[in-house]
Amino acid sequence: MGIGKGRIEALADGVFAIAMTLLILELKVPALPPDQIDQLPNRLLQLWPKVATFIISFLICGVYWVGHHAQLNFVRRSDRIFMWLNIVFLMVISAIPFSAALIGEYPQQPVAIWVYCGNLILAGAILFVQLQYAAGRGQLFDQDIDSRFVTLGGQRILMGPAVYLVALLMAGVLPIASLILCGVAPVLYLRPGRVDHYWKYGHRQPVTHDNLPN
Amino acid sequence: MGIGKGRIEALADGVFAIAMTLLILELKVPALPPDQIDQLPNRLLQLWPKVATFIISFLICGVYWVGHHAQLNFVRRSDRIFMWLNIVFLMVISAIPFSAALIGEYPQQPVAIWVYCGNLILAGAILFVQLQYAAGRGQLFDQDIDSRFVTLGGQRILMGPAVYLVALLMAGVLPIASLILCGVAPVLYLRPGRVDHYWKYGHRQPVTHDNLPN
Amino acid sequence: MGIGKGRIEALADGVFAIAMTLLILELKVPALPPDQIDQLPNRLLQLWPKVATFIISFLICGVYWVGHHAQLNFVRRSDRIFMWLNIVFLMVISAIPFSAALIGEYPQQPVAIWVYCGNLILAGAILFVQLQYAAGRGQLFDQDIDSRFVTLGGQRILMGPAVYLVALLMAGVLPIASLILCGVAPVLYLRPGRVDHYWKYGHRQPVTHDNLPN
Amino acid sequence: MGIGKGRIEALADGVFAIAMTLLILELKVPALPPDQIDQLPNRLLQLWPKVATFIISFLICGVYWVGHHAQLNFVRRSDRIFMWLNIVFLMVISAIPFSAALIGEYPQQPVAIWVYCGNLILAGAILFVQLQYAAGRGQLFDQDIDSRFVTLGGQRILMGPAVYLVALLMAGVLPIASLILCGVAPVLYLRPGRVDHYWKYGHRQPVTHDNLPN
Repeated sequence: MGIGKGRIEALADGVFAIAMTLLILELKVPALPPDQIDQLPNRLLQLWPKVATFIISFLICGVYWVGHHAQLNFVRRSDRIFMWLNIVFLMVISAIPFSAALIGEYPQQPVAIWVYCGNLILAGAILFVQLQYAAGRGQLFDQDIDSRFVTLGGQRILMGPAVYLVALLMAGVLPIASLILCGVAPVLYLRPGRVDHYWKYGHRQPVTHDNLPN
Repeated sequence: MGIGKGRIEALADGVFAIAMTLLILELKVPALPPDQIDQLPNRLLQLWPKVATFIISFLICGVYWVGHHAQLNFVRRSDRIFMWLNIVFLMVISAIPFSAALIGEYPQQPVAIWVYCGNLILAGAILFVQLQYAAGRGQLFDQDIDSRFVTLGGQRILMGPAVYLVALLMAGVLPIASLILCGVAPVLYLRPGRVDHYWKYGHRQPVTHDNLPN
Repeated sequence: MGIGKGRIEALADGVFAIAMTLLILELKVPALPPDQIDQLPNRLLQLWPKVATFIISFLICGVYWVGHHAQLNFVRRSDRIFMWLNIVFLMVISAIPFSAALIGEYPQQPVAIWVYCGNLILAGAILFVQLQYAAGRGQLFDQDIDSRFVTLGGQRILMGPAVYLVALLMAGVLPIASLILCGVAPVLYLRPGRVDHYWKYGHRQPVTHDNLPN
Repeated sequence: MGIGKGRIEALADGVFAIAMTLLILELKVPALPPDQIDQLPNRLLQLWPKVATFIISFLICGVYWVGHHAQLNFVRRSDRIFMWLNIVFLMVISAIPFSAALIGEYPQQPVAIWVYCGNLILAGAILFVQLQYAAGRGQLFDQDIDSRFVTLGGQRILMGPAVYLVALLMAGVLPIASLILCGVAPVLYLRPGRVDHYWKYGHRQPVTHDNLPN
């Protein structure tokens, strides 16, 4: 017997929903005295770096939510280590509103990009460790699961952190390029990948040359 | 095999619950020095535009929640595109507290009305696209679902955005009329429509002349 | 066919959880300059009206959550009117953090007591209407449900609002007595009532002289 | 018949998710005028006591969430007293963001340590009472549950509060030692204990000399 995964999913959905919705709190309505109220359109336009940060961060959280969702989908039972990996993962996710607020306020400062990318890399790394643990020592997946599912899933998880790592390393010399990379990374996850094959056709059928999607 | 819809619903309920509850945070208790404390009733009465914004925005969120609820009710499975449409929809919903705060603070400014109506139109548009995708290319509904259900449901979703579009276009010349339209729009959804017929009697029975509700 | 009640419960649990947890945000850590840091214990003690407001408001929300929980427990299906009654109920619940902040800041001001008690009365009234609708015209309960369950449940719901009404009416002359009444009201709900009999033994068995609990 | 436990779990997961995510709101992005923007790295480093408070408090909430999770896992039905114990437990949990903000702002002040440790002790004490009630007078567990499960579970719950009590008592003389104890306490829960045996092998098999884990 193991612990059910239902409440881990409930806690995760709660933390994701709150972290994602808290992102909007960084967009503050400009406070203007009555005689400067005609400045409102300009002041709203000046919010654009924070709007961009909101959209990108929301989508990145969405990527991690989908990843967590897909992984838990195949988990049959849970144990103490898996539960704590999840709690630490959620801790890192719940820190994203801070990192996003920091980069939204100081988009050009390398230290803000380091914190933001570091936060996202950490989230991806823990999700990757979770997958490896569940598939390996933890034996939390079905026993007959195709090992290539784990390999492909793991590669897909690391795709984003790899981009954030490049962005982090470039922040000191080309902060603009770092920001562009951060904005582009979630797009990588919008398009389907080989791992989707397993979502559609089940994770027990081996991928053969014939049904390999791309 | 597809991805279950249970966690999409859980994330959506979480985001809706938070976005709706965050609306109250715009109602701030007036800070008064001890010698002006008799001003409290007046200061509370002056909050009425924010109270109105809170009520209208909460009900509008309720409309979208009911729409999302009704749509997901008929979805049998999910895929990557549908999941991302949902995440983008939730992003737009989670922006409503900002737009509501803006219009609550500057109800007479056209730019505030544009942002607010734009936000609501976008939410409705994505919900409409979701329905079309699920019913069409995505094939996420039961195959024998009555196509008139999709048509009626789509019309009902677009009813609100049509009103918000008129409100948006009038904001520059008659902001008061725009505000009234925004306040009236949710009422349209309180009364049952033809689509409720399908809720009650199932979505596979064709609507005939005899059982057509109105 | 009707709409399931699962997502109404999910939205309600979300709104309750957020409204209850937001109450703590009114307790703000005192900001002290380094040379006045020895004032910290005093400043914390001065927070006691806000601590009391937090505890009482949290318990009152708990009372309404239990009431909502118990009511939905017996609902077999949902319809549009019931769904909207729920959304309006949740709107009133989500306003409690504002009313609680107001009374926590100005506990002696009649207007603050009026707003707070008015908010709570409204919540109870809607919950009562919901019960009557579900049991009556809406026919959302099992058909063979004991009508005394509905009567006793309704009486129990109105118990609190009756106390808040007295508190509201006394606020102008004896605000202290109003505050005490508000604090005492949730205690009424902690002790079991006749309606608990139905929780324990089912809601179809009529209460006879023999098994009537008190 | 009794009340289901599903909605207690839903409310609990919601309150935990919000309380845990609200902890990040204490980490505020430093506001710097444009000419002092090179101070940003220093100012971020100065946030470390708040970062530490965030991490420790998140993990402590995680400990209580796991404990609540494990306990509810064995509960078969609920009653009014158990429901109210849960609501009071959640009230104490939802106060943690305040206590954490206080200790994060004034880590060296004994009064801050008293409030923080007092909050955590109270949470553990209520969780312990809940377990005793459910296992004892409430008869909410299966009847054939091994009584040693209850004993071991209770000991495990009290492990943390015992450490916080020592920390609380030392706060007046050695605040640094108190802080270290608070930081170390969650680690005690990361490693599995005897009670995990019951999670794995079921709670009805008595622990014998042969299968006793440590």
